[in-house]
Amino acid sequence: MPELPSPVSAVDGRDGLDLSADVVELTRQLCDIPSESGAESRIADAVEAAVDALGHLRVLRFGNTVVARTELGRATRVAIAGHLDTVPINDNLPTRFVTVTEEDAAADVPGTRPGEYLWGRGTVDMKAGVATQLRVAASLAAPRHDVTWIWYDNEEVEASRNGLGLLSQVRPDLLHADFAILGEPTNGGVEGGCNGTLRADVRTHGRRAHSARAWAGVNAIHLAAPILERLADYEPATKRVDGLDYREGLNATRISGGVAGNVIPDLCTVHVNYRFAPSMSLDEACAFLESFFDGFDVEIVDRSPGARPGLDAGIARAFADAVGGEVRAKFGWTDVARFSALGVPAVNYGPGDPQKAHADDERVALDEIRSVERGLRAYLEDEA
Amino acid sequence: MPELPSPVSAVDGRDGLDLSADVVELTRQLCDIPSESGAESRIADAVEAAVDALGHLRVLRFGNTVVARTELGRATRVAIAGHLDTVPINDNLPTRFVTVTEEDAAADVPGTRPGEYLWGRGTVDMKAGVATQLRVAASLAAPRHDVTWIWYDNEEVEASRNGLGLLSQVRPDLLHADFAILGEPTNGGVEGGCNGTLRADVRTHGRRAHSARAWAGVNAIHLAAPILERLADYEPATKRVDGLDYREGLNATRISGGVAGNVIPDLCTVHVNYRFAPSMSLDEACAFLESFFDGFDVEIVDRSPGARPGLDAGIARAFADAVGGEVRAKFGWTDVARFSALGVPAVNYGPGDPQKAHADDERVALDEIRSVERGLRAYLEDEA
Repeated sequence: MPELPSPVSAVDGRDGLDLSADVVELTRQLCDIPSESGAESRIADAVEAAVDALGHLRVLRFGNTVVARTELGRATRVAIAGHLDTVPINDNLPTRFVTVTEEDAAADVPGTRPGEYLWGRGTVDMKAGVATQLRVAASLAAPRHDVTWIWYDNEEVEASRNGLGLLSQVRPDLLHADFAILGEPTNGGVEGGCNGTLRADVRTHGRRAHSARAWAGVNAIHLAAPILERLADYEPATKRVDGLDYREGLNATRISGGVAGNVIPDLCTVHVNYRFAPSMSLDEACAFLESFFDGFDVEIVDRSPGARPGLDAGIARAFADAVGGEVRAKFGWTDVARFSALGVPAVNYGPGDPQKAHADDERVALDEIRSVERGLRAYLEDEA
Repeated sequence: MPELPSPVSAVDGRDGLDLSADVVELTRQLCDIPSESGAESRIADAVEAAVDALGHLRVLRFGNTVVARTELGRATRVAIAGHLDTVPINDNLPTRFVTVTEEDAAADVPGTRPGEYLWGRGTVDMKAGVATQLRVAASLAAPRHDVTWIWYDNEEVEASRNGLGLLSQVRPDLLHADFAILGEPTNGGVEGGCNGTLRADVRTHGRRAHSARAWAGVNAIHLAAPILERLADYEPATKRVDGLDYREGLNATRISGGVAGNVIPDLCTVHVNYRFAPSMSLDEACAFLESFFDGFDVEIVDRSPGARPGLDAGIARAFADAVGGEVRAKFGWTDVARFSALGVPAVNYGPGDPQKAHADDERVALDEIRSVERGLRAYLEDEA
């Protein structure tokens, strides 16, 4: 079991967050506390202090992960999570407001809409999402379902440091819920589940020789021709899972081989990435890859299962209905798979265009932040 | 025109070479003067002093290249050359004598014969060859043909530093001859001409995308499949040139591509090495390569022409007859091509197994050193 740092006493008031402020203003406050992966203590302190002060949540801290729960005895519980870290800042803080004109939008990534944006690191991935969650956590003391809010660290780095992953190992009970929502950017729509992902090294082995006497050797790069042929000929499937269409993919992402300009190489390595629909288990995906590259030396070096969208569960369906709009499949792997692995259906729902995540001109449309706050509130507000 | 260092006055007697000694002893003296490429001044000084003292040769010095000529007014002139440098010493100096038993020979590289050997850096490549040349230069004051002896530096490093190449640019007249002999190791046989060699980068261009949304990109590694297929399917020819069989070769020696494990790569580069028979010109070889990789981005990055064996010239034929034995084609590129480019037919002829050149257990059979000395002497001795 991984070790977690001891809980840290947090409240020092340096970065007092105003949870009663407008959600755009709160997004700005969160973004302007730098929190690259591994350096989240300041923002975790600020979040912990702010939710602790509310009085209606039971607050727990694990390293730089903050858990805040209602304990109202509702029949159902929803987990709602967002990560506090960002990829490295690249001269894109503090945030500022920008206006995207029709012309700007036409020249930008596909789907960019004109309008008012908050620009800067973390705005899309994913402090706007965290801001909507904090606003609803603060203002709904008695939601329709019990809620476990989770704000965690180290999502942008290797899986072994991921705060949600560590929490699921040391306190899986805190992730148990009937449904989970992850605030990753989805342009304010609902994206269900996610594809699984495998990475593998596919290798060929030859025999070295001087290239002036190539017949004395066996060229490992030439032996790799069928690997690339199979990849080039492969037609990825689109699979329907729980009513959503998952597009798969199988790609070489790296290739390397060679010793020197005059030596017949004895090794060639093709690094492949397989993205598979969540109807396939990890074992099935590994077996497919090994059979696809039959005859070659295949080593699976990284594996993460997919997550079914779980929209057949009534509580998840009700969420999609409450926030409105079409539900789409999520292609990229996200932490929803961690909930899925615990049997909790989970979706992604957050403001911001994923194409702008990690971009130096990262920026989130203000109307999307407001719309996601409204959506979460509509879902959780007690009708009574 | 490249600059050459000014001629250096040499004689200091530190490394007095005894040209009247047995050729094996002289080989040992030469090897025990360390002379890695770029550090040949000590050995060049010793060689210059030794041949200058003979009195029957006109001695010239260019940097660390020594030229010694007879000027007897013969109808024909032969150039005989060897390089003075070695690849880096790797705990394999000073030299020592070793005995290779039947068992040792069976466990070594193919063709190893039992017998007495001189072991150490430079024994094969190519101080034994230089020793045979110095012995004959010293003892034949009036050879049958005028002789231009050339002992040069920096053969084991980039072509731009090669002493013979530099000499051919500043004083091409000194390389002019009716025939040339290079003392590179050939197991004591005659190897004619050499294949040419080209190196090229063959590239594919795609478009980056996140590997979770591969359909938004174009995979440059997959686009390289036909490059490897063509290479794998290519059957290299063996071409007869001036009576010798040259085996060609076309090989990928390096491949690289990829940005990150989750990114569709936009570039893949296959580095290929083409070894072509000397019946083909450089331009023809370039044209072949470009047409072979038709449809791809081909950049020729290095080119060296082959050398015809020129054994149809009477003087060359007479040499082969004098030293006896079968004449074979040389597959690796050697400095004979520099003579060939000046219209001088040239062959390789020297003691030592090329498979042991650059090896840490480099070693030359003593009987091969003696046999090559006898061969050179038989060829040059005046019958009168």
